[in-house]
Amino acid sequence: MSYELPIGARLRKSPFFPQTVAEGVKGFTSYNHMLMPVHYGDPEGEYWRLIDGVSMWDVSVERQVQITGPDAARLTQILVPRDVEKIRIGQGRYAPLSDNQGRLLNDPVLLKLDRDRYWLSLADSDIWLWARGVAYGFGLDVVIDEPDVSPLAIQGPKSFDVAAAIFGDWVRTVPFFAFHETAIDDIPVVVARSGWSHQGGFEIYLKDGSRGGDLWNIVKEAGQPFGIGPGAPNTVERTESGLLSFGTDTYPDANVFEVGLEQFVNLEMDADFVGKTALTRIRAEGPRRRRTGLFIDGPRLPTAEDHWPVFVGNRRVGICTIAVWSPRLKRNIAIALIDNTTAPDAAFRVTTPAGVREAAETSLPFCKPGRS
Amino acid sequence: MSYELPIGARLRKSPFFPQTVAEGVKGFTSYNHMLMPVHYGDPEGEYWRLIDGVSMWDVSVERQVQITGPDAARLTQILVPRDVEKIRIGQGRYAPLSDNQGRLLNDPVLLKLDRDRYWLSLADSDIWLWARGVAYGFGLDVVIDEPDVSPLAIQGPKSFDVAAAIFGDWVRTVPFFAFHETAIDDIPVVVARSGWSHQGGFEIYLKDGSRGGDLWNIVKEAGQPFGIGPGAPNTVERTESGLLSFGTDTYPDANVFEVGLEQFVNLEMDADFVGKTALTRIRAEGPRRRRTGLFIDGPRLPTAEDHWPVFVGNRRVGICTIAVWSPRLKRNIAIALIDNTTAPDAAFRVTTPAGVREAAETSLPFCKPGRS
Repeated sequence: MSYELPIGARLRKSPFFPQTVAEGVKGFTSYNHMLMPVHYGDPEGEYWRLIDGVSMWDVSVERQVQITGPDAARLTQILVPRDVEKIRIGQGRYAPLSDNQGRLLNDPVLLKLDRDRYWLSLADSDIWLWARGVAYGFGLDVVIDEPDVSPLAIQGPKSFDVAAAIFGDWVRTVPFFAFHETAIDDIPVVVARSGWSHQGGFEIYLKDGSRGGDLWNIVKEAGQPFGIGPGAPNTVERTESGLLSFGTDTYPDANVFEVGLEQFVNLEMDADFVGKTALTRIRAEGPRRRRTGLFIDGPRLPTAEDHWPVFVGNRRVGICTIAVWSPRLKRNIAIALIDNTTAPDAAFRVTTPAGVREAAETSLPFCKPGRS
Repeated sequence: MSYELPIGARLRKSPFFPQTVAEGVKGFTSYNHMLMPVHYGDPEGEYWRLIDGVSMWDVSVERQVQITGPDAARLTQILVPRDVEKIRIGQGRYAPLSDNQGRLLNDPVLLKLDRDRYWLSLADSDIWLWARGVAYGFGLDVVIDEPDVSPLAIQGPKSFDVAAAIFGDWVRTVPFFAFHETAIDDIPVVVARSGWSHQGGFEIYLKDGSRGGDLWNIVKEAGQPFGIGPGAPNTVERTESGLLSFGTDTYPDANVFEVGLEQFVNLEMDADFVGKTALTRIRAEGPRRRRTGLFIDGPRLPTAEDHWPVFVGNRRVGICTIAVWSPRLKRNIAIALIDNTTAPDAAFRVTTPAGVREAAETSLPFCKPGRS
């Protein structure tokens, strides 16, 4: 099901907007009060291009909350559950943010640009409000703003060849979540080994919004020999890969442990952060729900447009937060939030638009990178 | 210009979603991470129904941030620039929220439900993050959550007849922004004299999301004799009426005085609130920009899909934040943010998609309620 999305100034346009229109974008969603392309009219082709080749995505909706000033490191440490002091400059960290009850507020990538300059590269919520609120309450001397920074992702196995053609071979060896401040021609960018797929790739953070067209064209041209084409964050691939979609998978009020992000939370370090006490308690008690995979039986189902309820017998035990047909597994798969008292080998039933279906639990991810 | 908006679980559905689909909704936008109907395929008819008759709107995207607990009054006073102590229970107040630099964060209606229970009925930003951040920083004992509350608006001159048919004649005399907790049949609601138009009306805050269809049908049936029909917050009417659209009219980082909300900020009271110091200084210095009206010359222009730059001679002096064709005035009108050093009688020029047009400043609003 889809509807018209009228274009207006409230939902801001990306610096790549004219290019995505020229490429024939067919649908947008909104994310962080901006328009994000979601497809170009060929869902299957776009999926396989990501799995087998290389795809370029306008993900400028991944806005940066920039924290600078004398207390920048202190505020950042209050917000993120990682040891900020120990992160090297030029290194990123996946950083699930929680409030004082351990509830997930966003799952940004933290980029440490300098000892007193940090970016939180956001999923879909207004973390600038959270950061400003905490800073105000603590009376910290920081500046919290949104810099003119807009990521363009190149994702897929051939993204390494494309990145090397643009930046040079050194970029092939950049470790995951590491980044470099550099320039393409004279366009200032940050290039990071990152992206919201499991097919490998880079995000090129454009630091001058007036140069969106130039950057798009450079990437497109460099990618031509490798069959690059326009795409977007891919719901099917992210489900197969078990990636978290903040909002889709976390509403309402999931905590960091329920959605399986414990490996990104450092409860052992000396530094304190918002939610540390609550999360320590939740870890001791065990989370109430688990984020897990379900195989759903029967013929191909449409991509879920809603959360689908999950039952064992007559008891509602959770929801599928997303369900898709997997082209690689050729079966219906879902990511689910399930009551932790439910046995993993229970006989699950899912209420889908095509009726009630039987389902079986499995671990995430469903697929490894590539065709395998 | 419009595109497809695919439906998924990240953009939540309203309790009235099935009813809006049944009514033939054609377009949605997203607002507070939810789907909001924007039109039903007859923009002109929907406009005149609002001006002359009565229209019903799914505005459940106006989410409530509920503040309860021992420190609820204290936190609310920190957040809003009104004297919270002096607001009667059952009274609402338009409450522009600002940060410590006076930048507008949202322009909710504050509803005082009890001495220790408040709702901020939001425009489009995640004020729950701001409120939780400030509360955390100050160590306040509050609960900040989103209750199951979804407004349905009835707007237009005949909305008084419809509301009286539902609630009884007493509702005709409810003062502006006052509200009552009551029930329709057994459906718990808050009915408030409010709404995002200047044509008069009410917002019925549904307090049980499972009863959306029932409430929709009750309102629709009660409105039948008065020609009620589905509609949505109306960009043309709001521009004619000079209503502020947070985001559209305020990006980036407008302060409360620049967008003309000084009458809703109490700088004289003893109570402190975030931004009081900055706003006191801004008032003394005079705001850097003014929110004002422009008549744009020439033939009918399309509704603006972007901010249009405004010039005097070769100098860029501001932007039109919204521009529409006014059916009542039969001319092109715009709301603009203009550099305050610019004389009101300057020869303005606006860069529109139809070329450069001459423009003249005028005061807001453009129109009074009704046909006049």
